[in-house]
Amino acid sequence: MTMELLEGETRMKDYSLERLVMLTDGVFAIAITLLAIELAPPEHWDHTFAGLLRGMGAELWAYVLSFTVIAVYWATHRRTFQRFLRSDWVLTTFNLVLLGLVTLLPFASRLIAEAGIKGEPFVIYTGLITAIGVCSALMWGYAAFIGRLVDKDLPMSLRVILFLVLLIVPTGMAVGSMMLADRSHWWVGLIMIAIVAPIIWLRRRLQKKAGL
Amino acid sequence: MTMELLEGETRMKDYSLERLVMLTDGVFAIAITLLAIELAPPEHWDHTFAGLLRGMGAELWAYVLSFTVIAVYWATHRRTFQRFLRSDWVLTTFNLVLLGLVTLLPFASRLIAEAGIKGEPFVIYTGLITAIGVCSALMWGYAAFIGRLVDKDLPMSLRVILFLVLLIVPTGMAVGSMMLADRSHWWVGLIMIAIVAPIIWLRRRLQKKAGL
Amino acid sequence: MTMELLEGETRMKDYSLERLVMLTDGVFAIAITLLAIELAPPEHWDHTFAGLLRGMGAELWAYVLSFTVIAVYWATHRRTFQRFLRSDWVLTTFNLVLLGLVTLLPFASRLIAEAGIKGEPFVIYTGLITAIGVCSALMWGYAAFIGRLVDKDLPMSLRVILFLVLLIVPTGMAVGSMMLADRSHWWVGLIMIAIVAPIIWLRRRLQKKAGL
Amino acid sequence: MTMELLEGETRMKDYSLERLVMLTDGVFAIAITLLAIELAPPEHWDHTFAGLLRGMGAELWAYVLSFTVIAVYWATHRRTFQRFLRSDWVLTTFNLVLLGLVTLLPFASRLIAEAGIKGEPFVIYTGLITAIGVCSALMWGYAAFIGRLVDKDLPMSLRVILFLVLLIVPTGMAVGSMMLADRSHWWVGLIMIAIVAPIIWLRRRLQKKAGL
Repeated sequence: MTMELLEGETRMKDYSLERLVMLTDGVFAIAITLLAIELAPPEHWDHTFAGLLRGMGAELWAYVLSFTVIAVYWATHRRTFQRFLRSDWVLTTFNLVLLGLVTLLPFASRLIAEAGIKGEPFVIYTGLITAIGVCSALMWGYAAFIGRLVDKDLPMSLRVILFLVLLIVPTGMAVGSMMLADRSHWWVGLIMIAIVAPIIWLRRRLQKKAGL
Repeated sequence: MTMELLEGETRMKDYSLERLVMLTDGVFAIAITLLAIELAPPEHWDHTFAGLLRGMGAELWAYVLSFTVIAVYWATHRRTFQRFLRSDWVLTTFNLVLLGLVTLLPFASRLIAEAGIKGEPFVIYTGLITAIGVCSALMWGYAAFIGRLVDKDLPMSLRVILFLVLLIVPTGMAVGSMMLADRSHWWVGLIMIAIVAPIIWLRRRLQKKAGL
Repeated sequence: MTMELLEGETRMKDYSLERLVMLTDGVFAIAITLLAIELAPPEHWDHTFAGLLRGMGAELWAYVLSFTVIAVYWATHRRTFQRFLRSDWVLTTFNLVLLGLVTLLPFASRLIAEAGIKGEPFVIYTGLITAIGVCSALMWGYAAFIGRLVDKDLPMSLRVILFLVLLIVPTGMAVGSMMLADRSHWWVGLIMIAIVAPIIWLRRRLQKKAGL
Repeated sequence: MTMELLEGETRMKDYSLERLVMLTDGVFAIAITLLAIELAPPEHWDHTFAGLLRGMGAELWAYVLSFTVIAVYWATHRRTFQRFLRSDWVLTTFNLVLLGLVTLLPFASRLIAEAGIKGEPFVIYTGLITAIGVCSALMWGYAAFIGRLVDKDLPMSLRVILFLVLLIVPTGMAVGSMMLADRSHWWVGLIMIAIVAPIIWLRRRLQKKAGL
């Protein structure tokens, strides 16, 4: 415990990294709150809970979906940045692009609230989610393999497995979204789980072995 | 004093916990500010203070109520998290659900600004407040009794009493709200106070005894 | 320098105080940004700068005024909290009320953007500004004289003079606002300056003497 | 590395500076997120991606442009403030004016989303960008040459070159914007690059020499 706390301490001391994290948490906090600001009771609402759900079904559903997406990506960001010792301009650029994509989520959320979970609007929405995940994975890839921004004691196997996990998140989200839109492809989900499960298991094992 | 400051220091060093708190404070700050952004002078306002109160009575009242609710839950969050040493994914999930419910408050506030403090809209509003409180209490329950996320020197009696206090907050808010809507049940409030007073007194006593 | 840095360090270690400050900076940041979100080009705008100023004169003026007010109160908050060692529930309550009043500023700003710097809307606006200042002064008064939340080495004379300065800010703003609305009372401004100048001078002297 | 971390540590300990940075990151985070809140699908949207781009071309373009501008200025702010040891009221004032100008960007962005990248609206937009940059450069100029707010070991040559770089950013943005609006002046861009390239090269060299 003590050692990890000390590590945590030195980790947060880099000024550029600290401010990048502050900006990021600010943007995520605002994006997550703005999702809900769009919600408004339906016109000619009969003042019942059932009427609210009937009149706002698609909107509330889009809210829950987008909230989950932002929450998952925030947790991913936190997990990744926990390993960073410092930042450079490439990491900053990746992170700013990531933030730009996140700020577009309330807009994309409005698209599917209007048009429903189907057709091209939903493809745009899924595309945006996938883009955030890919950007997130590339950021880790750069930091872990090229930019040398992570602790040099972090084993290579763990770096690779984390990269795979980061690539799985957006893929899983895209697949999950597609299955929401068209339930006849349920077997894609099974294949997905068959691929993901061993990777997650491997990551836990490697992380324990590395004492992290 | 010195010892508490040192404790405070180590407490904030856990990276995951620190970022969870930063995100939370951001979301609370935005939710509290967005409550007021909805306020707009009434149409055909006669430019007098009386006219403002007449035209916006329900809206201003909903603003004051929701502001108080968010403020109380923020203070509750601060009090709870002060005891945490680290976070895990269960705590993170509880906290994100809590934030999701908090971001819905401006929306629920709009419902009662429109429909008044009565009927089903007010039940929805009260339900949301209660849900936030229950989520808050479950979070503490998990951290204190299951997840071992708090200082192991924190006496069990204090953990239990804090859990009870956290359950009282939403119950009190629900009861208070019901009494606002229908004043004939004033005796429920008396029973409430008769239950709450000794618990608060016990908490203070236990906290003093534990030297916290 | 070194000593002050160390002081600064211990000062920020109190968990409750630190989170109160984080919430406050968040609310101020949002309030200051929301002021501008209201601004929109006038209908039937002729796409010239002169047309923009002509069509939005009152709005832009209200923006600049409210921005200055929020900025001054933020600086006041920073100056006050720099002296605090810890927080208690009274300070927290004062601070939350202060935040509640600050979040109302964009709304009050809209009132005068609509009705102009005159009549009752401007009195409401000035009243809000004064209330923020009075709340700020009371908060310092409580912390410095009753709650013992400041460094005990801070000389009493300096505490008193800071309290006076804090009372002057809202008074000066109220007087300045009144003079904006009715320029015939220019001599009130002169009396104001005659009272304020020696107090400011005294504060600087006392602060230098105390080596702060 | 170790020394830089220690420096980073002392750098962030000044209370006034730390809070100024927190407020700044908050405002930038909100401004960057609010840019996107304006985006809405076009009326009578045919639910295709092509229709979205056709109906929102100018808006999306204004979003990307303004996002880049805010991101660049945030990075500039971070680079500048990394060198600061403390703040005074002049720096605070410069920084608050900077924030005021940044909060106007979503508004200016709306102007060009409506009127397109041409004519007087675009001149207003470019003027605002330039004003932010000039304010940023003056802030550094004050801190490095007059207010003695930076580390006294920072060589004078590096201070001067950083000031030049800060002046180049807004100039480059203004020139780039003009070229976007009227492509016939492409040779201005060539001259610009011929001036900027050696300055950037010099800064890198000086920074390496100073071991920073």
